Amino acid sequence: MSGFFGSISKNSCVSDVFYGTDYHSHLGTKRAGMAFYSAGNGFQRAIHSLEDGYFRNKFESDMAGFTGNIGIGVISDTEAQPIQVTTHLGRFAVATVSRIINMDELEAYFLKKHQTFAETSQGSINATELVAKLIAEADDFLAGIENVYKRVKGSCSLLVLTEDCIIAARDKLGRTPVVIGKKQDARAVAFETCSFPNLSFETERFLGPGEIVRITAEGIEQLRKPGDRMQVCSFLWVYYGYPPSFYENINVDECRYHCGAALAANDTVHADFVAGIPDSGIGHAMGYSNARGIPLKRPYTKYTPTWPRSFMPQSQVTRDLVARMKLITNDSVVRGKKGIFLDDSIVRGTQLKDNVRNLHAAGIKEVHMRIACPPLTYPCEFLNFSRSRSNLDLATHKAVKKLEDRDEFDMKDYSDYRNGKYACMVEQIRKNLDLTTLVYQKLNDLVGAIGLPKEKLCTHCWDGSGYFDNPKPA
Amino acid sequence: MSGFFGSISKNSCVSDVFYGTDYHSHLGTKRAGMAFYSAGNGFQRAIHSLEDGYFRNKFESDMAGFTGNIGIGVISDTEAQPIQVTTHLGRFAVATVSRIINMDELEAYFLKKHQTFAETSQGSINATELVAKLIAEADDFLAGIENVYKRVKGSCSLLVLTEDCIIAARDKLGRTPVVIGKKQDARAVAFETCSFPNLSFETERFLGPGEIVRITAEGIEQLRKPGDRMQVCSFLWVYYGYPPSFYENINVDECRYHCGAALAANDTVHADFVAGIPDSGIGHAMGYSNARGIPLKRPYTKYTPTWPRSFMPQSQVTRDLVARMKLITNDSVVRGKKGIFLDDSIVRGTQLKDNVRNLHAAGIKEVHMRIACPPLTYPCEFLNFSRSRSNLDLATHKAVKKLEDRDEFDMKDYSDYRNGKYACMVEQIRKNLDLTTLVYQKLNDLVGAIGLPKEKLCTHCWDGSGYFDNPKPA
Amino acid sequence: MSGFFGSISKNSCVSDVFYGTDYHSHLGTKRAGMAFYSAGNGFQRAIHSLEDGYFRNKFESDMAGFTGNIGIGVISDTEAQPIQVTTHLGRFAVATVSRIINMDELEAYFLKKHQTFAETSQGSINATELVAKLIAEADDFLAGIENVYKRVKGSCSLLVLTEDCIIAARDKLGRTPVVIGKKQDARAVAFETCSFPNLSFETERFLGPGEIVRITAEGIEQLRKPGDRMQVCSFLWVYYGYPPSFYENINVDECRYHCGAALAANDTVHADFVAGIPDSGIGHAMGYSNARGIPLKRPYTKYTPTWPRSFMPQSQVTRDLVARMKLITNDSVVRGKKGIFLDDSIVRGTQLKDNVRNLHAAGIKEVHMRIACPPLTYPCEFLNFSRSRSNLDLATHKAVKKLEDRDEFDMKDYSDYRNGKYACMVEQIRKNLDLTTLVYQKLNDLVGAIGLPKEKLCTHCWDGSGYFDNPKPA
Amino acid sequence: MSGFFGSISKNSCVSDVFYGTDYHSHLGTKRAGMAFYSAGNGFQRAIHSLEDGYFRNKFESDMAGFTGNIGIGVISDTEAQPIQVTTHLGRFAVATVSRIINMDELEAYFLKKHQTFAETSQGSINATELVAKLIAEADDFLAGIENVYKRVKGSCSLLVLTEDCIIAARDKLGRTPVVIGKKQDARAVAFETCSFPNLSFETERFLGPGEIVRITAEGIEQLRKPGDRMQVCSFLWVYYGYPPSFYENINVDECRYHCGAALAANDTVHADFVAGIPDSGIGHAMGYSNARGIPLKRPYTKYTPTWPRSFMPQSQVTRDLVARMKLITNDSVVRGKKGIFLDDSIVRGTQLKDNVRNLHAAGIKEVHMRIACPPLTYPCEFLNFSRSRSNLDLATHKAVKKLEDRDEFDMKDYSDYRNGKYACMVEQIRKNLDLTTLVYQKLNDLVGAIGLPKEKLCTHCWDGSGYFDNPKPA
Repeated sequence: MSGFFGSISKNSCVSDVFYGTDYHSHLGTKRAGMAFYSAGNGFQRAIHSLEDGYFRNKFESDMAGFTGNIGIGVISDTEAQPIQVTTHLGRFAVATVSRIINMDELEAYFLKKHQTFAETSQGSINATELVAKLIAEADDFLAGIENVYKRVKGSCSLLVLTEDCIIAARDKLGRTPVVIGKKQDARAVAFETCSFPNLSFETERFLGPGEIVRITAEGIEQLRKPGDRMQVCSFLWVYYGYPPSFYENINVDECRYHCGAALAANDTVHADFVAGIPDSGIGHAMGYSNARGIPLKRPYTKYTPTWPRSFMPQSQVTRDLVARMKLITNDSVVRGKKGIFLDDSIVRGTQLKDNVRNLHAAGIKEVHMRIACPPLTYPCEFLNFSRSRSNLDLATHKAVKKLEDRDEFDMKDYSDYRNGKYACMVEQIRKNLDLTTLVYQKLNDLVGAIGLPKEKLCTHCWDGSGYFDNPKPA
Repeated sequence: MSGFFGSISKNSCVSDVFYGTDYHSHLGTKRAGMAFYSAGNGFQRAIHSLEDGYFRNKFESDMAGFTGNIGIGVISDTEAQPIQVTTHLGRFAVATVSRIINMDELEAYFLKKHQTFAETSQGSINATELVAKLIAEADDFLAGIENVYKRVKGSCSLLVLTEDCIIAARDKLGRTPVVIGKKQDARAVAFETCSFPNLSFETERFLGPGEIVRITAEGIEQLRKPGDRMQVCSFLWVYYGYPPSFYENINVDECRYHCGAALAANDTVHADFVAGIPDSGIGHAMGYSNARGIPLKRPYTKYTPTWPRSFMPQSQVTRDLVARMKLITNDSVVRGKKGIFLDDSIVRGTQLKDNVRNLHAAGIKEVHMRIACPPLTYPCEFLNFSRSRSNLDLATHKAVKKLEDRDEFDMKDYSDYRNGKYACMVEQIRKNLDLTTLVYQKLNDLVGAIGLPKEKLCTHCWDGSGYFDNPKPA
Repeated sequence: MSGFFGSISKNSCVSDVFYGTDYHSHLGTKRAGMAFYSAGNGFQRAIHSLEDGYFRNKFESDMAGFTGNIGIGVISDTEAQPIQVTTHLGRFAVATVSRIINMDELEAYFLKKHQTFAETSQGSINATELVAKLIAEADDFLAGIENVYKRVKGSCSLLVLTEDCIIAARDKLGRTPVVIGKKQDARAVAFETCSFPNLSFETERFLGPGEIVRITAEGIEQLRKPGDRMQVCSFLWVYYGYPPSFYENINVDECRYHCGAALAANDTVHADFVAGIPDSGIGHAMGYSNARGIPLKRPYTKYTPTWPRSFMPQSQVTRDLVARMKLITNDSVVRGKKGIFLDDSIVRGTQLKDNVRNLHAAGIKEVHMRIACPPLTYPCEFLNFSRSRSNLDLATHKAVKKLEDRDEFDMKDYSDYRNGKYACMVEQIRKNLDLTTLVYQKLNDLVGAIGLPKEKLCTHCWDGSGYFDNPKPA
Repeated sequence: MSGFFGSISKNSCVSDVFYGTDYHSHLGTKRAGMAFYSAGNGFQRAIHSLEDGYFRNKFESDMAGFTGNIGIGVISDTEAQPIQVTTHLGRFAVATVSRIINMDELEAYFLKKHQTFAETSQGSINATELVAKLIAEADDFLAGIENVYKRVKGSCSLLVLTEDCIIAARDKLGRTPVVIGKKQDARAVAFETCSFPNLSFETERFLGPGEIVRITAEGIEQLRKPGDRMQVCSFLWVYYGYPPSFYENINVDECRYHCGAALAANDTVHADFVAGIPDSGIGHAMGYSNARGIPLKRPYTKYTPTWPRSFMPQSQVTRDLVARMKLITNDSVVRGKKGIFLDDSIVRGTQLKDNVRNLHAAGIKEVHMRIACPPLTYPCEFLNFSRSRSNLDLATHKAVKKLEDRDEFDMKDYSDYRNGKYACMVEQIRKNLDLTTLVYQKLNDLVGAIGLPKEKLCTHCWDGSGYFDNPKPA
């Protein structure tokens, strides 16, 4: 995914940008950066890798050097950011939350004009530098960002740091959120509202799809009105978002309680306890436990003192080690017992399979798995989160491949719970994961738990719907 | 507190000692160390500060250099450890979980004999070096450790690493735990059983009070039988221990569910939700929520991606900042609602007061606080955990001081819930903390939740009971 | 100044580029970088600051990650380098030794075309990125580098790293050197030949002014012939170059011996010893001592074990401390003695003044200063070395200002030793520095010591001669 | 060797101890440490390895934390120092320059008394901790240090840091130097006087052999008079000492000029230039060059910008690499020329052999080697410097082994230049090293160059003389 935070104040914003960006750490594991502007020191920027350390540790030593009443920060799941450029529009810095599908086409377009890219990211050009060049093609920032909307196939929300304002733009279809916060003499702009309360910001308003605003310490000036159509990612509530965050005024954790309650509504399985798979399953489990009156327990505890999060180390060996070490099974809870387990989703199922094996080793009697969303049958085409995974890695595709005994197949029938093929696929996944029972959320129930009209949500992962606006060829 | 872990194997134990020690990180914030022995490289040792980093990060670069089938590690809340000494018993390393009250007397005893101390810890001699000297006074390790039992006023559990075994000793009255784990071709010894499952150790047995054993990869040889009397710290279950851990075969999290349930049993307050104060209040809240059928919710979420734990930075300013930043209030849960909050205990009440202020700021209607143990009326005299705090810092003493309007008073009546003074004190604390209602656990209910006979438990904090064995004057 | 080194081999060149670049460390104090290309890993680059550490220490940890048979490195006295760009000519890296006087004009030219600069260096655009853009304007590398020659007012030697060759170009008037080395299956290109012997390279040939070559492991292909006119910087021999290096086939240290001998030729002052001001005065002093038969001694010793070089820390306070600490006076040599001291040049005279004060404090009787070049009367307009210094900082200008009692004056007469004003100025400098006698080299003698025709040398600092080729307006 | 520095002042001594200790960096390559005392912070100490960094870099981050008007520092070629102990004499810190031959015997003595050693150094006890224990055996510091003199077989100079003074003691036979410096309101004590001038100290006086003094900011109190007999190490002047330093009032560099002149006196070989092998051969070469009127040149230059000194990395591979990389041959000086080379001594000859090979590769015609001291025929038994080397590594022993074709032989005849065997050995060494001619200094000439009576000097390396005082058995 990735996430960003910016602030402009009548006083120094350095500390707010530091902590505000840090509160987006759950959204990215590759690179992080901050940029500030002050009249005395001009633009200042630092970028560090997150692959071997946490945001605050990495930037602590840079903090003393930063000055400014205006700054932006980004936690990036892909390229190094923010990019700082000198252009005919002046010097500015850009941070993006984006996926650009037609990167090669846009690169060729600029190279043909004998332009140069100075940044590289894992052997390719840097997507944020590309966005900066698209902005600099136009005669002002508004036209430049509209140029980004027009040319980029994919999705791109962005922050531009200039010498006197932050320009914030939410992607054309509003797949990812941008929200404005305010306090005395300052404004903030963020992906996650959970970055606001401890910095004393209150939510001022959520940008609409394609909306562009110019932010100063005094307020917000709308540069472009939001569009009518929206395709906000449903997974923000199910998995990505931090529990206290809101998108479109809807709280993440409340949504998860509703997901759990919806799963509980028609469930009759007997069990001694209910539990969530840490971390994102916990909210779902709380909703389920309360709805059915079955005690919530902790069959696993995460060793948070030193394994703070499911971060994504480079090597698979380290990732496996982390997965194995961070959760500690509590024999006392599971031995001889029947448990209902809630998880947000099943992607590949690999880690879940290990967890189930540990539960059996610890003497559990029955493992009933309840998933807060429908089976993931269509890989995401719009955002970053599953782009490096082969389709056949998906637990659903593995199951169907076994059922149909071939590599190519149509997932349409399998994604409709009323179709018999759906039941066969779920049964196959249950067997693969060695579960006593397995039930997925129905899509309608998920949509209901979120509370937005279905046409405003992207539900592509589950039913293949969702769409792009056609970008203009470069 | 402090905690230790050791292992001896037919193969390399380095990785097991590294991860096993790491799983004690919640028990100390000052220093950590590991020592290994191998025939090729002899004794090897590293010690690092934990005040500016986590155990695994600090020791990562040392790992490549360590070799050995036998080693020990320690997370120390006080002095640098393990101590490595050359003595007439040979070279050995020692790690302790101890509080030595008569340190000055024992120091004077050795200085008078023209012996020297080579280590210092915050301006005093190093307690573990003192223990090593007491061991080296005798003609063998058993007599040496019995010399420690005899001379030390206080409590001292310890591990001795020699060239061919680990000698483990639980303190005379068993205030702190020592437990043995086993797997194919290896043994482990630990404070926390939660260090065992992910390293494939199973609990072999818990040492009794004063018991001393010699551990090799093949098994355990008892060098000294356990004593009859025990004074194990009740706070291990209420606060210190990690949820999946067991002491005396009793699970920490189960005990906390029972604590919550006991508080629920006679409670009738109406509320919209139940919540635990992270982290140690969560287990208590789960027990309470289930017993009363009131939904468990998360009015706060800890930002675990980068604020992994309530660690103890040196400066109060930083501590306050951490306290403020790590918990994020979820307005969606609290606005206009009545909540019941579970916490393990109230020591000074400072942080709780801040939390309550945030809840009010977020629009909560009622805050009902339920505490898993009785009021802390007598400061701990036996272990480290409250030694640097003045009595008057305690929330109970502050309340009584206000009630009696003087600095010196007798807490006896205030520690008995049947006495009217108890109710006055609790009411005063409730006012100080701006709570709607405040209820503490009764001591009998706590003892019942743990499940051991009261005479085996140290309950000094709450009723002033608890005792030392008389040490012999040096 | 700045200096670069590149190598292309049939085997890995990583170690050669690492050590070869390190041997240019005396030429820059700000940034250093290396770039490599390998088919497996593509382009790889690292850049570090040299302001708080030495080249080898800074890049040690990067070394394990680099692979390639082709690479370049640079020690930069100004901007971060090498720059790595993606262009219509493909991806390539560039390192430069340059001074670009019309940077603002060229920046405006590109911005007008809506191009962007992604790098900044101390608040300005990065000169090497600008060079990369000038190259990318053309249809091939040769035309691109000729575009650099045409557009840049100033001087620019450069290395281009492509996927299959290194293109090396010496600046149009050959102010700075570029030399090719060869060994079995490999070629190297460098600024300093002193980088060759320990890596087993032999000097193959020196590029001429404006010459451009394409280097592979097999040999050199000339892309552009050298021009007729040359303006190589005389200071390379007097000060910048490392003693074992050669430029235009003329050795640095031999030139310095000749300088010293030339000063000795007409000198008759009596003295007990001759000494060089470390480091660059030593060679001059050896030549002088031998010519006059007066013993060479060490009245100062540099504490090289931990003060390795006259590096240039950021703060003036630190610079003064370093200057004070690194030289240790030897009383035994100076007390009651007369000494002749050789130095390469006097720029501001500040440090020399301190040294002379220390000599007096140690009891010296007479201090006779002999300078290897004429008085510095015209600030360098062609290379970086004095660009941040105000004219009035120069010892000559300070002296003349005092003599003429005004801020504006013509240095022409003062730069001619046959003119009476020259003698007055030198006498004033002598007084300012508290010297017994002061003699500067005559320009003819310096030219003779180097051994090239005067018209091939830039002697601007001393006589105001020297010129640019007119660049074409952008 | 090792070296120490201490200071006591009416103001903070922290900066002086930092820089003063740094100026002993040429004396040790293993560990360094500093200890300070202030009333507010008590004793403070830091120790770092020197194997991967320089003194100032390693201690820079500790400096902010140190306070005190009294402190000591040490550059140790062996064990970690200073040792800080708590004893019946109070708390104090000790630094030593020592070699203790009967360490095992003294260790056994203390272990038998059930005392413990808390420090280890490469698998053995720490020699300085042993010295601290010997001091603590007595009833006051004077008796304690005399106990060290009595019990230690070997040599031990030391500094004791107490809360109000520094006690300095030179070893019984004065093998290593201790010198006192003074300035306004402060005293310093050092091994090297070259640490004094830049810190504004003047030499107050040199301690005699076995002398013990108590130093305060006001002055020196003699606790023990110097003994009559002295055995100061001759190698201090020939090799160890830094050129501006004095021992027994005799300057190091002047001694080296005399050594060179003495070698020149009877030499008639023809040559184009004279050169010193850096670093310690330079002073000798200056003396020789001047005496014979043959030009001094630099056939090698050390690349000091990043290879600051002949430090001693752990691995032989790295040592060889450093040896190869740090010296750059200047072809211009050597091709087709005859050169006379001065070096301080030949130990194993390995590095010299490599240098000679490089000279031949660069086209030199003749290599005449002149050595500032006689052949090293007897390994040092008194100080650390050759303790890890086998006798047969010595160039002399290798030569004699070849001549006599056996492993055991008597070196007596070979160490007397008037004996024919001496000439045979030197000729064999000349052949082994591929030299044109080889001449060693005669012992009388070396003694003359130093200027002390021979009976005051230890000349054991060359003639097998030199002696211990008998230590009392423990």
